[in-house]
Amino acid sequence: MPDGDSTNQDAKRQRSGRNQRRETRLGGGQGVKRPYIVRNIPTYDILSDESLSRIEATADRILAEIGIELREDAEAMRLYKEAGADVTEQSADVWRIKFEPGMLREVLKTAPAEFTQHARNPANSVRIGGKNVVFAPSYGSPFVMDLDRGRRYGTIEDFQNFVKLAQSSPWLHHSGGTVCEPTDVPVNKRHLDMVYAHIRYSDRAFLGSITAAERAADSVEMARLVFGEAFTDQNCVVMGNFNTTSPLVLDGVTTSGIRTYAAANQGSIHLPFLLGGAVAPLTIAGMVAQGLAESMASCALTQLVRPGAPAILASFFSSMSLKSGSPTFGTPEPAIGSLAMGQLARRLNLPLRCAGNFSTSKLPDGQAMQQSMMSMMSAVQGGANYVLHSAGFLDGLLSVSYEKLVMDTDMCGALHAYLDGMEVNEDTLGFDALAELGPGQHLFSTAHTLRHYETAYWDSALNDDQPWETWDEQGGLDYAVRANARWKKLLAEYQAPALDEGIDEALRDFVARRKGDMPDMWY
Amino acid sequence: MPDGDSTNQDAKRQRSGRNQRRETRLGGGQGVKRPYIVRNIPTYDILSDESLSRIEATADRILAEIGIELREDAEAMRLYKEAGADVTEQSADVWRIKFEPGMLREVLKTAPAEFTQHARNPANSVRIGGKNVVFAPSYGSPFVMDLDRGRRYGTIEDFQNFVKLAQSSPWLHHSGGTVCEPTDVPVNKRHLDMVYAHIRYSDRAFLGSITAAERAADSVEMARLVFGEAFTDQNCVVMGNFNTTSPLVLDGVTTSGIRTYAAANQGSIHLPFLLGGAVAPLTIAGMVAQGLAESMASCALTQLVRPGAPAILASFFSSMSLKSGSPTFGTPEPAIGSLAMGQLARRLNLPLRCAGNFSTSKLPDGQAMQQSMMSMMSAVQGGANYVLHSAGFLDGLLSVSYEKLVMDTDMCGALHAYLDGMEVNEDTLGFDALAELGPGQHLFSTAHTLRHYETAYWDSALNDDQPWETWDEQGGLDYAVRANARWKKLLAEYQAPALDEGIDEALRDFVARRKGDMPDMWY
Repeated sequence: MPDGDSTNQDAKRQRSGRNQRRETRLGGGQGVKRPYIVRNIPTYDILSDESLSRIEATADRILAEIGIELREDAEAMRLYKEAGADVTEQSADVWRIKFEPGMLREVLKTAPAEFTQHARNPANSVRIGGKNVVFAPSYGSPFVMDLDRGRRYGTIEDFQNFVKLAQSSPWLHHSGGTVCEPTDVPVNKRHLDMVYAHIRYSDRAFLGSITAAERAADSVEMARLVFGEAFTDQNCVVMGNFNTTSPLVLDGVTTSGIRTYAAANQGSIHLPFLLGGAVAPLTIAGMVAQGLAESMASCALTQLVRPGAPAILASFFSSMSLKSGSPTFGTPEPAIGSLAMGQLARRLNLPLRCAGNFSTSKLPDGQAMQQSMMSMMSAVQGGANYVLHSAGFLDGLLSVSYEKLVMDTDMCGALHAYLDGMEVNEDTLGFDALAELGPGQHLFSTAHTLRHYETAYWDSALNDDQPWETWDEQGGLDYAVRANARWKKLLAEYQAPALDEGIDEALRDFVARRKGDMPDMWY
Repeated sequence: MPDGDSTNQDAKRQRSGRNQRRETRLGGGQGVKRPYIVRNIPTYDILSDESLSRIEATADRILAEIGIELREDAEAMRLYKEAGADVTEQSADVWRIKFEPGMLREVLKTAPAEFTQHARNPANSVRIGGKNVVFAPSYGSPFVMDLDRGRRYGTIEDFQNFVKLAQSSPWLHHSGGTVCEPTDVPVNKRHLDMVYAHIRYSDRAFLGSITAAERAADSVEMARLVFGEAFTDQNCVVMGNFNTTSPLVLDGVTTSGIRTYAAANQGSIHLPFLLGGAVAPLTIAGMVAQGLAESMASCALTQLVRPGAPAILASFFSSMSLKSGSPTFGTPEPAIGSLAMGQLARRLNLPLRCAGNFSTSKLPDGQAMQQSMMSMMSAVQGGANYVLHSAGFLDGLLSVSYEKLVMDTDMCGALHAYLDGMEVNEDTLGFDALAELGPGQHLFSTAHTLRHYETAYWDSALNDDQPWETWDEQGGLDYAVRANARWKKLLAEYQAPALDEGIDEALRDFVARRKGDMPDMWY
């Protein structure tokens, strides 16, 4: 059992979170902080069962008739073959793997529908799957941006800053993984500094490395130093975020990394990054069918390695600019695709990673927030359980923006209130509030208003809702400029969460030893 | 019959619109232009039937036990009383009207669930209700803004500019009403210049005046000059947008205006503008119950005047900043309320106006678009049929922004594609696209891509999706600056739609005569 007895514990925490809510929703950008969101509104289901069945049938047909190309991982080939897949050798180290319709669904039945990823601070452990929603910052950008210094390559200092900023926000739940590429650290050693930074500067759950099997193994090993060997073997304490090579390819670096996480009973995310017209059909139905096929094939490998290991179905949909051929993010068609992907994940009974705060804007401006909101709404409405790229994403994922990160975390706060939905009971229906003074009388002073006013509404830390005159007197600052001041304030006020000194020392020893084992590699 | 035989005609137009779609979705910010949207995805229903029933029961209880205060309209009082309401005189010209549970629902049964508002260009007539979605620009701001001149009182020139900009956009469907207050025209004559501007500079449907019964009558009279007396008596050609005086008051200016439109068989919108904690309970369930009660009472008056006259249920929800007590717009709680209001309107079988592109930002920045998107998504997902404030809204409705107007119309374009949802058929599932070249091969050159690439995706006229380097070389402009250039270009290129000279002359004569009849009033 990957969850041990954490379900009861989680349920208890969740209940206490709900009780806490009314007490602690105080203004000033604070609010209903919780370790993760349990959605209280239904998902937005846009496709009929018939349409969903057609998409599933197409995914099955892709897997059965075209198949997946597997490269340079004979062990993965052997596992698929033993499970009953039809394997044809295409050349040395390249195989075409075909799956009978229904075969992968059968294999995936041992994967948990929900699981807990433990954080080093138990209060921050997250439940992934079902009605739960977990927000994590952006992932994988080589560049970083801020209003002062513009766009530049990311460094380990930027990486640490982003981990600290994410940790500072009550509205993120997970520390993420490669928040930016620390390009000043050798390629083969980055993962050590990144994993260490997540553990040192955050006490939330995090993602490990996936860029090579040994880096995946190092990530798991560092998690073991924090959580202990026995606990790690029975519980998810680190996850890897794996990309398929679309269309329809799994390369050996990916599959060996997936096998490493699964063998250690750790979680993995299985993401086709689908750019319509380039690596997928540009019609959304086809893109979704392909995404489902690729992610199922990738997820299934985990169950062949270790049945019960946590696996997260995933898709990242992007459209294309008809003018330039550039990828476009935060557009309506991918948002629709993400809603459909949510329905398909629930039919498959697997947790889902989908969408996020996507944008192609190069500045934290109106375009950025309009695109982000369309994309992010599809994530939370579609029932995505793990939302990577919840904060910081700009420039078509090439850059993480300091300002956008704090804008997005503020939006994540709004989405907490949104997903709480509407309580309908005698008190919230407020008949007495209207009856107290009657028609034509303001309700400012009613007992109902006084009882609720501190907790009724989510309160933004970043929006300016003041009258124009006040705003103007205070300098007439736009949202980006206010965000610039805010991330600096948060960084200045940041305090690292306590970390056991023995663990810290063991981690630093491990990092130093592994760095000493290898010459620097810069590509 | 308010609709005449327009239903068939509309259905035909709708079908031809759908056929047209595949042919005309071409890039460059053009796309699937249509006279209005017929949604192809379901509404987002977040409340259970039980919760909806409780809200309805509370609305009924408000109407039965507290009642509505009616001021200074003895004729409206007489109509409610004759229909069976319980009327108590509170003072001279002030009555408390109470309605037995279910009474107003019975009265509202004669109101059409869908109707057509005719435009002077028949191709632009809009169908309101059911699965139809109609976007109209912002309404009622005293101030206007642009990046060059900042914030200032609106003038008739601004008003005309906004009508022209709205007409230029393929993504709006309706010319709206008081897009801004033309404060350089006397208060008692503004309506004449506004209605004339809508007719002269737009060939879409529009809203008339509601600020006094005689101004409502003038608006209807001007519409008659365009559409003819007989046609106007049998068809909706103008509508009025009426606000209740929350909480729970209907004043005589409003009710006499409502009676004027209804008697002429013209449409009316019945809007409680609910600021939680000020004029409504600050719990959303209570706000929605009150909104339903007020709007039902106001809508019902139309049916007492002329059964079958078009009436639109409406609500405008706003939250409150806990820091300053200022109203906040584009926040999560009102978005949830709007989704619920959609469900209630469908149960009542009435068209709905709800939400829009709301924001409290004072600039067309990230805050503006994040708030707008959250609010606007609730409108289109919740099934609002007439979305006033679809473009230009800033500054908590105190200002219309030139830049925001073109940003919002671009977003309205994205929402056209969003509401089209996902076609799932053999072609869109794209199996052949993947099979053609197989795993690992880009799809740029497949027959499927070549067949679809011009029409697959909505194409923004304003977003910058280019690579960072290209964008930087072109000046690194932010969204607001690009929007500034765009509205100027659109105004420069604007061409007035043809208007029959006889009609134009009759309108100008009417305006001149009515202006001559009255001394200027400035308050």
